[in-house]
Amino acid sequence: MNIHFLGTASGSPSKERNVTSIALNLMKENGEIWLFDCGEATQHQILHTAIRPSKIRRIFITHLHGDHIFGLLGLLCSRSFLSAAEPTPLTLYGTKGLRQFVETGLHISQSYLTYPLEIIELDDEGVALDTPNFRVLYRTLAHGMPSYAYKIVEADHAGSLKTEELAALGIPKGALYGALKRGETVVLPNGNTLNGKDFIEPPRKGREVVIFGDTTFQPEFADFCRGADVLVHESTFDAEDMENARKFGHSTCTQAAELAKLAQVKRLILTHISAKYSGDKALNLLNDAQAIFPNTELARDFWEMEIALS
Amino acid sequence: MNIHFLGTASGSPSKERNVTSIALNLMKENGEIWLFDCGEATQHQILHTAIRPSKIRRIFITHLHGDHIFGLLGLLCSRSFLSAAEPTPLTLYGTKGLRQFVETGLHISQSYLTYPLEIIELDDEGVALDTPNFRVLYRTLAHGMPSYAYKIVEADHAGSLKTEELAALGIPKGALYGALKRGETVVLPNGNTLNGKDFIEPPRKGREVVIFGDTTFQPEFADFCRGADVLVHESTFDAEDMENARKFGHSTCTQAAELAKLAQVKRLILTHISAKYSGDKALNLLNDAQAIFPNTELARDFWEMEIALS
Repeated sequence: MNIHFLGTASGSPSKERNVTSIALNLMKENGEIWLFDCGEATQHQILHTAIRPSKIRRIFITHLHGDHIFGLLGLLCSRSFLSAAEPTPLTLYGTKGLRQFVETGLHISQSYLTYPLEIIELDDEGVALDTPNFRVLYRTLAHGMPSYAYKIVEADHAGSLKTEELAALGIPKGALYGALKRGETVVLPNGNTLNGKDFIEPPRKGREVVIFGDTTFQPEFADFCRGADVLVHESTFDAEDMENARKFGHSTCTQAAELAKLAQVKRLILTHISAKYSGDKALNLLNDAQAIFPNTELARDFWEMEIALS
Repeated sequence: MNIHFLGTASGSPSKERNVTSIALNLMKENGEIWLFDCGEATQHQILHTAIRPSKIRRIFITHLHGDHIFGLLGLLCSRSFLSAAEPTPLTLYGTKGLRQFVETGLHISQSYLTYPLEIIELDDEGVALDTPNFRVLYRTLAHGMPSYAYKIVEADHAGSLKTEELAALGIPKGALYGALKRGETVVLPNGNTLNGKDFIEPPRKGREVVIFGDTTFQPEFADFCRGADVLVHESTFDAEDMENARKFGHSTCTQAAELAKLAQVKRLILTHISAKYSGDKALNLLNDAQAIFPNTELARDFWEMEIALS
C-alpha cells in the first residue's frame, strides 16, 4: 500500500505543483488503484508514473471545487480510449452534483465510454464502500460547500504461522501447516496432537488512512481520524494567516498539526499548498507544523509514500 | 502576429504533445491574445509561455469533443483568480452546447468569475467577429458533430508615406507629412502644390489565417481558405490510413496537403498528431504532405510561428 501524490497544489496549478489528486496504490492488496480527487491534468501527471488507467477502479471526490474535479472528464475519456481492450469498470464517489457534472460533460462532448461507469452520490456521513478487505467511511467537513474526509480502513491481517516453533518440534512442512494455519487440531504420526491456535501469531491491525478534503479547523474532526496511520490534511495557509484560512474555508499548517496531535495519528502529511509558498517557502509550513506535531511531512508531486503494517 | 502552438496532439495527451490549443498572438496588432480550442491542461502549457491569461480576450472553440474543450473550465477559473485585479472581459465562441458545458461546470463547482464572460453560440456559417482590424469568419466542416473552420481576416494596412521621395524634394518633416499621409493636397511655402495620393505606397493586404477543426477531407472546403497566408489543418492519420480517417471523421496528412494545394494557400501547418506517431515517426506525415504541397510544416508544442505581412 502506498500513497502516490499526483498533485499537491491549492487552487491553481504552478510549474512546481499540480492541482489536487492522490492515488492510493492497492495493487498488492486487491489489484486496484484508487484516486482521491482529480484536478485538471491528473491524467497528464499519470503519464509520468507507472499507473495504468485501467487499474484505477474507484475515484473518491472530496468536493466539487474545480481544482479537485476538472481533470475528471479527461481522465474518464482517456481511460476509455487507452483501455478499450480491457474495459474494467470504474466507480465515482462524491457529493451531490457529481453526477450532473460528469454526465453533462460526457453528453456535450459526445464521449462514449467503453467501460461501465457508476456514480455514487453520498450523504452527510456514512460508509462509501464495504468490501472484505477495505471499508471507506466518510464524513462532512466545513468548507462552504459539502467537503468530505475519507477514512480507508483495512481489515486486520490474520496472524502468521509460527513456522520456527513448528520446525523446532520437527513438524514437516506440507498439508499439516495448512491445517494448523486454519486453527485446526491435528494428530501427528506419533499420536501427539497439536492445536493450530497455539501456533498462530496474533492478528495484525489493518492500516487506516484518512484523507481530508478542504476544510476549516474544527477540533471535533479529530474523532474521525483518531489513531490513523496516516492523516493527509490540507495546509493552504501559513501559521500567521489564520484569518484568511477561516475566511476562505481552509486550514493553516499549524491547525493541521493541532488536529493530528488531538487525534494521535501516527503520521501527518501536509498537502494543498498554495503557489505563493513556492520552493523553500513551503518548508516554513512544515517547520511550523513539526513544532506542534513532529511526525509531519510535506507532500510534493510524484512522492510515493509506503504505508507499512505497524 | 504569431501563432503559438500550445497543444498539437489528437485525442489524448502524451509526454510529447498536449491536446489541442492554439494561441493567436495579436498583442502588437490589438493587444489581445486569442485561443483556438482549449484542451485539458492548456492553462498548464501557458505557464511555460509569456502569455498572461488576462490578455486572452477571445476563445474560439472549433467543436465540443473533449480534447478540444476539457481545459476550458480550469482556464476560466485560473484566469479569474490570477487577474482579479485586472478583470478583462472574455468572449467564448463555439457550437451549440458550449454554453451548457461551461455554465454547468461553473455552477456545479461553485466558481464565480471576477470578469465578464460572454458565450456566443454560432450557426452553420457566418461572421463570428467583426472589428475594424479583424474579421473572423467560420464555416462548418464534416466531423460527425458540428466542427468549424475559422478564418481570421486582417484589414488591409494603409500604404506608408514615400518619405525618401519627399526628402529628395526637400520637403521638411512635420505637419506637412501628416497631411500628405492623409491624402490631402498641400501648398508648399514656394507656392507649389503636392497631392498626398502621389506619395503613398499602395495598401498592403492584411493577413489571412485559417484554422481548421477536425474534419474529413472535402475538396469544397478549399473555397474557404483560398489564398490564405497560413492554413492550420489536422493530420490525424498517415497517408496510408485513409480508411480510418474517413471512418473517424478525420484527415490524413496528404489530404491536408491536397486541400492546401487546391486552395493555393501560402503555408500549410499540420497539427492534431496522434500519439502513435511519436518522435521521428511524425516526420513521415510531414514528408508525405510535402511531396504534394512543399511549403508544409509540422506543428510541435510551444512552437511560435511569426506571420509576416506579404
